[in-house]
Amino acid sequence: MITVNVDLGQRAYPIHIGPGLIHRTDLFAPHIAGASIAIVTNTTVEPLYGEQLRATLAPLGKKVITIVLPDGEAYKNWETLNLIFDRLLLEHADRKTTLIALGGGVIGDMTGFAASCYMRGVPFIQVPTTLLAQVDSSVGGKTGINHPHGKNMIGAFYQPQTVIADIATLRTLPPRELAAGLAEVIKHGLIADAAFFDWVERNIESLNRCEESAVMHAVKVSCDIKSRVVAADEREGGVRATLNFGHTFGHAIEAGLGYGEWLHGEAVGCGMVMAADLSVRQGLLDAAAQDRVTAIVAAAHLPVRAPALGAQRYIDLMSVDKKAEAGAVKFILLDGVGRAIITAVPDSALQATLARAV
Amino acid sequence: MITVNVDLGQRAYPIHIGPGLIHRTDLFAPHIAGASIAIVTNTTVEPLYGEQLRATLAPLGKKVITIVLPDGEAYKNWETLNLIFDRLLLEHADRKTTLIALGGGVIGDMTGFAASCYMRGVPFIQVPTTLLAQVDSSVGGKTGINHPHGKNMIGAFYQPQTVIADIATLRTLPPRELAAGLAEVIKHGLIADAAFFDWVERNIESLNRCEESAVMHAVKVSCDIKSRVVAADEREGGVRATLNFGHTFGHAIEAGLGYGEWLHGEAVGCGMVMAADLSVRQGLLDAAAQDRVTAIVAAAHLPVRAPALGAQRYIDLMSVDKKAEAGAVKFILLDGVGRAIITAVPDSALQATLARAV
Repeated sequence: MITVNVDLGQRAYPIHIGPGLIHRTDLFAPHIAGASIAIVTNTTVEPLYGEQLRATLAPLGKKVITIVLPDGEAYKNWETLNLIFDRLLLEHADRKTTLIALGGGVIGDMTGFAASCYMRGVPFIQVPTTLLAQVDSSVGGKTGINHPHGKNMIGAFYQPQTVIADIATLRTLPPRELAAGLAEVIKHGLIADAAFFDWVERNIESLNRCEESAVMHAVKVSCDIKSRVVAADEREGGVRATLNFGHTFGHAIEAGLGYGEWLHGEAVGCGMVMAADLSVRQGLLDAAAQDRVTAIVAAAHLPVRAPALGAQRYIDLMSVDKKAEAGAVKFILLDGVGRAIITAVPDSALQATLARAV
Repeated sequence: MITVNVDLGQRAYPIHIGPGLIHRTDLFAPHIAGASIAIVTNTTVEPLYGEQLRATLAPLGKKVITIVLPDGEAYKNWETLNLIFDRLLLEHADRKTTLIALGGGVIGDMTGFAASCYMRGVPFIQVPTTLLAQVDSSVGGKTGINHPHGKNMIGAFYQPQTVIADIATLRTLPPRELAAGLAEVIKHGLIADAAFFDWVERNIESLNRCEESAVMHAVKVSCDIKSRVVAADEREGGVRATLNFGHTFGHAIEAGLGYGEWLHGEAVGCGMVMAADLSVRQGLLDAAAQDRVTAIVAAAHLPVRAPALGAQRYIDLMSVDKKAEAGAVKFILLDGVGRAIITAVPDSALQATLARAV
């Protein structure tokens, strides 16, 4: 087991990474103070890991309830969030009830947001069961739901008590979901760590095969990079926005196709290719580096070709993205491999990237 | 003008109290950083003060939109909250858009919660136009909405940039709403300041007539008391709970009758009479002090007799209240006038209070 500490002062928390951690009662025990626990999961994960997690929690002698939500980004909305609140109230969950998010990024985002709002805040623990959630959404405290007019528009910054990333749960992950997680691993190298990006290039086949030692290293370094960035800028005033590399285009793809059509990681993979193209047009990245971006995205079995929504539709969708302030969309671009910057771009460059991509 | 500073470190903010402050552009200007402002108000307050506030903001040269919600506690729910989000997204409000809550406690609670969630947090300003909001809900950062199973069950702790309490707006307040605000003024004396309680007893007729100097003093001391308590315990781990004196019974009354039947302050007034009765049964308060509580609540034209919901219904309703932890309802009782304590009570004492009251 490896532990990465996210250094956020009073809100600091440990991320434990390793195989079989879902069975470790001792990792959960220190973080559960109240008399009851609510596991929040979905119809896909519950049959795989629900019983295992309940068996792990049983020795703690708490009341444990399980809230099973429908699976998918399409359900990351008010209505599903309210299913959590309804059940918590029905079961008389109180201010010390701990919520445990058992599942991928959608479950983590919704459970974290529910924990932040229920009685104005109860503790929660993340047990991410997808690579995407382990390397990305379980670090940094971003929680929330989608709105018909935009992704993650409603939410909170709210930190978990701990994250327990069981690498063994990735064995049941469909290949498409594994690839989606690799998009964020690739991103972390591109924005912050050229040596790690080299390592990902050399080990992409091991990662594609979900080999344990490669995956553990990828999760560990990803959590390290992301928690360093988050600790420096918890509420995304500045540098944290670089973690959105590929996401401005990616969110437009997700919203334009309808949430759930492409996986988030697939949209981000393609979005990174588009952002690399824009970086070249701004004179920040050379063609060889751009080729490396496209090649690694393709090698991870992620889409490199954007859906043909039309340039104007992309622009409309990006203008409601949260990164848009007072009408000007900011982009995260690569200033070489391993370094990201946040900048506005001229309309002509954006149009050229969109024309090439779609 | 009097200014009370709420001392919450990085989240500290000033409360300005005085007549005509809604016209003071200079009080708003330092707290509005972005390019746009969204006033959130209701159908009752908009015709009274909407145009005045927009005229005050006009010199700032910002885009100003106004979101007019239906009026009443019955609308303090998800559906109404979503009206705010829908409009903000439609108008491309961004992360720097400032929300201004123009109205009473319901508008303040919903606007504050919307501000805490929209894009994971945007700035907001409170312009409370009821006495209740000026002395209570605008101080302390509690925001939220009701759930069919309980009041204020979903929300956040989120502090405004500033509170601008224009005493002159209270002139348009219906007498019933003025009385509801006095409930919280009385409460502040009872739980924390015996001398202020004496002052309220001597000046209750001036307060009932909404005389400017009396009201300014009542708002100022109330904000002082509440902000001192909140600064000591922002997230209600301990002493802050004493501010809920009268609220455990009060929330049960509101929920039992259906939200909106009694005003919040009316339920709290009656709840304080019930809590005083329970305090006597626990040997904490003498009969003469209990009589003072009943007399001042009656003198403020607030109900002293609880609705006949039945004892068991009260108990059921209180057990889902947020103060209930692991099934044991904690009560805020008076240990003499000017001092509150938080304690569990024996079932027999509670039954006796309920039997007498209903």
